[in-house]
Amino acid sequence: MRSTVADDFERMWGDLLPVGRSAASGGYFRQPFTTPEVELRSWFVEQCEARGLRVETDAFGNVVGWWDVPSGPSGPGVLTGSHLDSVLDGGAYDGPLGVVSALAAVDVLRSRGFVPARPIGVSVFVEEEGSRFGLACLGSRLAAGALAWDSARSLTDRDGVALGDVVAGGSSSLLDGVATFVELHVEQGRDLVDRGVAIGVGSEIWPHGRYRFDLTGAANHAGTTRMEDRVDPMLTYAFAVLGANKQARLASQRATFGRVEVTPNGTNAVPSRVTAWLDARASSEAALDSLVDGITAQARDRAERDGTDLSVTAESVSGAVAFDPALAARLAADHEGGDWPVIPTAAGHDAGILSAAGIPTAMLFVRNPTGVSHSPAEYAEMDDCVAGVNALAAVLKDLAK
Amino acid sequence: MRSTVADDFERMWGDLLPVGRSAASGGYFRQPFTTPEVELRSWFVEQCEARGLRVETDAFGNVVGWWDVPSGPSGPGVLTGSHLDSVLDGGAYDGPLGVVSALAAVDVLRSRGFVPARPIGVSVFVEEEGSRFGLACLGSRLAAGALAWDSARSLTDRDGVALGDVVAGGSSSLLDGVATFVELHVEQGRDLVDRGVAIGVGSEIWPHGRYRFDLTGAANHAGTTRMEDRVDPMLTYAFAVLGANKQARLASQRATFGRVEVTPNGTNAVPSRVTAWLDARASSEAALDSLVDGITAQARDRAERDGTDLSVTAESVSGAVAFDPALAARLAADHEGGDWPVIPTAAGHDAGILSAAGIPTAMLFVRNPTGVSHSPAEYAEMDDCVAGVNALAAVLKDLAK
Repeated sequence: MRSTVADDFERMWGDLLPVGRSAASGGYFRQPFTTPEVELRSWFVEQCEARGLRVETDAFGNVVGWWDVPSGPSGPGVLTGSHLDSVLDGGAYDGPLGVVSALAAVDVLRSRGFVPARPIGVSVFVEEEGSRFGLACLGSRLAAGALAWDSARSLTDRDGVALGDVVAGGSSSLLDGVATFVELHVEQGRDLVDRGVAIGVGSEIWPHGRYRFDLTGAANHAGTTRMEDRVDPMLTYAFAVLGANKQARLASQRATFGRVEVTPNGTNAVPSRVTAWLDARASSEAALDSLVDGITAQARDRAERDGTDLSVTAESVSGAVAFDPALAARLAADHEGGDWPVIPTAAGHDAGILSAAGIPTAMLFVRNPTGVSHSPAEYAEMDDCVAGVNALAAVLKDLAK
Repeated sequence: MRSTVADDFERMWGDLLPVGRSAASGGYFRQPFTTPEVELRSWFVEQCEARGLRVETDAFGNVVGWWDVPSGPSGPGVLTGSHLDSVLDGGAYDGPLGVVSALAAVDVLRSRGFVPARPIGVSVFVEEEGSRFGLACLGSRLAAGALAWDSARSLTDRDGVALGDVVAGGSSSLLDGVATFVELHVEQGRDLVDRGVAIGVGSEIWPHGRYRFDLTGAANHAGTTRMEDRVDPMLTYAFAVLGANKQARLASQRATFGRVEVTPNGTNAVPSRVTAWLDARASSEAALDSLVDGITAQARDRAERDGTDLSVTAESVSGAVAFDPALAARLAADHEGGDWPVIPTAAGHDAGILSAAGIPTAMLFVRNPTGVSHSPAEYAEMDDCVAGVNALAAVLKDLAK
């Protein structure tokens, strides 16, 4: 069995590896609705069709391939899958591992002669990372009705292109009749490495949000303007960066300024404007509020000293998600060998959206030896990938029997 | 006289105003060898031709229109002019004021029946701001032989386009036979406003330089990576920004981080790399060295704490320029009314390059009521512009008689 699963997995993995890869960094650029990401979704549809799965798409670009029950109409379905888009210069595993593992798990079940009593669907949701339109889990939010199309259509990317210009939009019935969702994902941390196990089950997602900091100052000549005459928003920004880091460190939470845009961004000009995005995550909603309030207050104090204006906009905030505990316990025990550990994550996932929408949801994590994610250094050993496929196959068999 | 000069000036100024102007900010985007800047240089050639000036261009795009001595061969010439490119989102006056004033001064002298005993040239040098290829005074450096074409041709802009791809390059004889250079420029500060006078004469240019700070860290997931596990170059950058500001403030010098580029610049990714440019200026070369060394040392300390790598590259450093003191004294006294003040500037100018190349050089400054430059707020009153034209005409008459 081992070698067949590995061969199947490696064949599909090999199809994906070159798509959207930067030769310079080795990282991936698979922004939603750009050539590499469209190519990946076409590949996914081909894979579904080659397996005789019934392909459903919705008006947002989300896709599900259904393995229907051969005897005809049946009960509610079991959905598994992930996403194919990446952050800018991201790793190969975040997203695609869950999609390829889902297809491979279907292959495993079929090779064993399993006949599902409930439909099994393999899903791909678009724009999970929010790296193009700024809102993470965009496709699953739209599919689950957690976000209205009228609000989403005017979201724009960095070039000013609106979401409404790249997808038809409307409504989605893709999740009708989905009773359970299971997402397999590479671990984005070192929990499983530290425990020395290949597979973990998700317990919860930390609450998290993205907050845009708009800092306005006054453009001026960098050479001739005396330091005391400046209204320089870069200073306020720099202070906010250091303040956010310190507050998150002291509170054992997470705060990051990883994206910044400067106007006019010229070497010899004091900037007129700095726009920066804070990514904040915390172990509880109260802790998240307190962290963001603290960072904002410190930045506001500094803005007052610098004479700059600060406005903070919460672009997206996701509350805590506790995955179905009974389902997690069932998954954790449902396999050969010892129990899998049940662990939390601070990363957002489509599974969080579906769970919040009332669909019993679980996550499986596959060990990542580097612990690194959103980076070309993201990795999983082939043995662990195979363990992930077998784990997912066992879970699907249990849920669809 | 007053009203004719104003009409002449306003007619030309009106030609330039719409070119490369952003409707959103009111600022100008006149990058070298882009449509707006090429349009301005074409306009300049037309203006020269309409006045019967003999147009010379060189292989770098620099242009001079010569008012030759009617009686034939004559002694070395007097050159005046400035530049037509702008910083990103810059003001209307920085550069164009000197070019339009030079043409208007020729008109004034002709209307008075003046016949020059030496040729008078009106010049436009390309890429004075260095806002496209990163090296200020690029055109004048090449024309003066202060920079070799072999070094310059491979300079690239933000899109990777090389200078060698947009101009022919080679050598220049444009400055052969130039005995004196006078550049009129809008003041980039409040010295003349504070003194209550319309016109000043330049004494010196502060030494200044641009230094690229390359900070390398490790990309990672902004949500799942513990604060203590990060190698985040944004932190080192933020510390450098605040350190540079403080050191410049305490030393009464100038230091600015106005341009930064982040990789991958994603909201949910700890950056792998931050590249930032320091603009530093000081009243002496020793003070500049000490300032840059201090800023670098502080950033290096922080990089060690952050685990990041810092490399600092001096992209261009210009030593102190003292303009010809006898010429400055002659200009300052050479007009109706009281003496013009002789004042230093911390801004680089083509006049600094020509002066360093051994050409006796002077600058005239026109009062700027806002004191602001490299910004849409840059300004000069029409009366002061007319005073500038008349001042330049008087200087040219004196030098070319």
